[in-house]
Amino acid sequence: MTLDQIQTPAALIDLTRMQRNIARMQSRMDTLGVAFRPHVKTSKCVEVAQAQRDAGARGITVSTLKEAEQFFVAGFSDILYAVGMVASKLPRAMALRRAGCDLKLVVDNLEAALAVAQFGREHGETFEVWIEIDTDGHRSGVQPDEARLIDIGRALHGDDTHHGARLGGVMTHAGSSYDLNTSDALAKLAEQERAGCVHAAERLRDAGLPCDVVSVGSTPTALAAQHLDGVTEVRAGVYVFFDLVMCNVGVCTTGDLALSVLTTVIGHQVDKGWAILDAGWMAMSRDRGTSKQTNDYGYGQPCTLNGAPLDGYVLMGANQEHGILANVDHPDRDIAAHLPVGTRLLILPNHACATGAQFPAYHARSEDGEVAVWDRFYGW
Amino acid sequence: MTLDQIQTPAALIDLTRMQRNIARMQSRMDTLGVAFRPHVKTSKCVEVAQAQRDAGARGITVSTLKEAEQFFVAGFSDILYAVGMVASKLPRAMALRRAGCDLKLVVDNLEAALAVAQFGREHGETFEVWIEIDTDGHRSGVQPDEARLIDIGRALHGDDTHHGARLGGVMTHAGSSYDLNTSDALAKLAEQERAGCVHAAERLRDAGLPCDVVSVGSTPTALAAQHLDGVTEVRAGVYVFFDLVMCNVGVCTTGDLALSVLTTVIGHQVDKGWAILDAGWMAMSRDRGTSKQTNDYGYGQPCTLNGAPLDGYVLMGANQEHGILANVDHPDRDIAAHLPVGTRLLILPNHACATGAQFPAYHARSEDGEVAVWDRFYGW
Repeated sequence: MTLDQIQTPAALIDLTRMQRNIARMQSRMDTLGVAFRPHVKTSKCVEVAQAQRDAGARGITVSTLKEAEQFFVAGFSDILYAVGMVASKLPRAMALRRAGCDLKLVVDNLEAALAVAQFGREHGETFEVWIEIDTDGHRSGVQPDEARLIDIGRALHGDDTHHGARLGGVMTHAGSSYDLNTSDALAKLAEQERAGCVHAAERLRDAGLPCDVVSVGSTPTALAAQHLDGVTEVRAGVYVFFDLVMCNVGVCTTGDLALSVLTTVIGHQVDKGWAILDAGWMAMSRDRGTSKQTNDYGYGQPCTLNGAPLDGYVLMGANQEHGILANVDHPDRDIAAHLPVGTRLLILPNHACATGAQFPAYHARSEDGEVAVWDRFYGW
Repeated sequence: MTLDQIQTPAALIDLTRMQRNIARMQSRMDTLGVAFRPHVKTSKCVEVAQAQRDAGARGITVSTLKEAEQFFVAGFSDILYAVGMVASKLPRAMALRRAGCDLKLVVDNLEAALAVAQFGREHGETFEVWIEIDTDGHRSGVQPDEARLIDIGRALHGDDTHHGARLGGVMTHAGSSYDLNTSDALAKLAEQERAGCVHAAERLRDAGLPCDVVSVGSTPTALAAQHLDGVTEVRAGVYVFFDLVMCNVGVCTTGDLALSVLTTVIGHQVDKGWAILDAGWMAMSRDRGTSKQTNDYGYGQPCTLNGAPLDGYVLMGANQEHGILANVDHPDRDIAAHLPVGTRLLILPNHACATGAQFPAYHARSEDGEVAVWDRFYGW
């Protein structure tokens, strides 16, 4: 299959860029001396995760139990489910472990820790659980100095072999890194993320509890960290494709973006300088992550089919199946001549995780122009 | 199946409310004396469309050829594909027509009209095409008074039986109605939508061209129209579920909202008054349609399981699989006691079309509490 045979809209992966992104991150992790556990929520695609593993990744991170199930069936066993566990999801987690999946769970509160241990005891299962640490205040987690960190650790660590849970380590995610845009600020946050998580691990160890794993990461902090002393592994997801939000954060350029949406011009409003595309928000997603950043790309950056950005033009509006492309500062009254009906374009997305999720499959294009269809899944 | 057996997050349909919404719209259309062609892009679910047909709808509107294919297989034949046609999609449209589907196409430019007619002639097919009219300047369409309207009509209307296309009518969608919030403004826009589309039809007829169908509509204008003289049919989509955006527009109340996301509390940040939910933007969608309206609901309005809104609380933030629930004006430091880990809630969405699209299936709950699983599809 080649590009002109694909029905639009379609989610296109530039494999040359993807492999370069994978190599860049893995090389950085190797230099820092830590294991790398990619977050596969970005792609939800077995072929992408296999490329990450082939480059040296050890284990994967998932955001849903469905991802754990799908990737386990596809041959991945070392899986961290990085969203706080609750009692109602334990039967599904147990089924995975009993099928041979080395699934790790996460908790950030005593109720959940007790629920996991109790369910494990009742069912003769020992769940490996990591405690989520809050190192930047942006979401979940126990702060490194909170007293309850030790209580949660004790709830997870039994003295007998029938305790139902065991404390495997600590993990954190400095997601506030998405709000930054200088290398100094990113390096500072990376150190805050590292130091906070290592400190939590030390407190647990000082209390006589085991804490083998110290897991940190987000794409920006992973790339900005100067050293990772005391950390055993890093997690990152969106780096595999990168996106316009990451361009604004400053960790990539538009030439690194490996995911785009292939679209067709279906009409114009010449007086307004608009081209109407068949990629609306159903294709791009509703993500407007660049709206509060330095460069606001609307719903995406249009490019020619060879990946060159159409400077000045953005996807300025989106309805469900219609996108509005325009040069906002210099309205293009000749747009129907520049981009006639039937013209195909690529749109770089604000947020690769959100845009990819809108598609049942990727079209993966290699350097020789050949296109393969790679399925992706969704749901929970 | 009952509510407590459903894994969260899940997309829940309140069937009592949905049937009431369907009856309300159909009754209004019956009173106005027009046919009703619901837009099934909102649900992409056969059972929902069947309920609309059972109530009196004639034909359906779709936003993708995949919807046309899926609904045709499910027994729907009278289908309007309401996004501008381009040459590359004609083989798929022809396959549907040859399988017996009464598929209608839409164009708003001469190039597309000529392409459809030429393809039809080359393949011995006569495509029924409607011309899209722009009655409010928000997106696509030919303005009612533009000279090219007649050119497009002539391109679609041949004198011989082997012309490849035939002009079936005109259609418009006053999507700018979503920006309004008073009944006077909505009634005025509904009249503008009606008058513009009827005027375009009259111009075509005055030029000796056929124009049987005059199709208008959006949920707000359909409900606000005082009369629809000259109109033959109305289209509307989101009314079947309604949503928070429609509440702000003023055409429904939260008690009408038939779609919600079932979620579980998975943690807290007590100092901040946050409850962390397992419904993030992957479940709610990234749609922030209420952000510029009178009431900004963040990523959604939390309710108890019986549908009562938790006044003052909103989903103030969302990561991929985490939602942050808070009372923004009056931070709730007792939130862990009010909404302990494991609590289940419903979240009303900003935009039903966007939220539904995140889920592979709906859980449809009838008045007796029984829950059925209704598949929905996605992609193009």
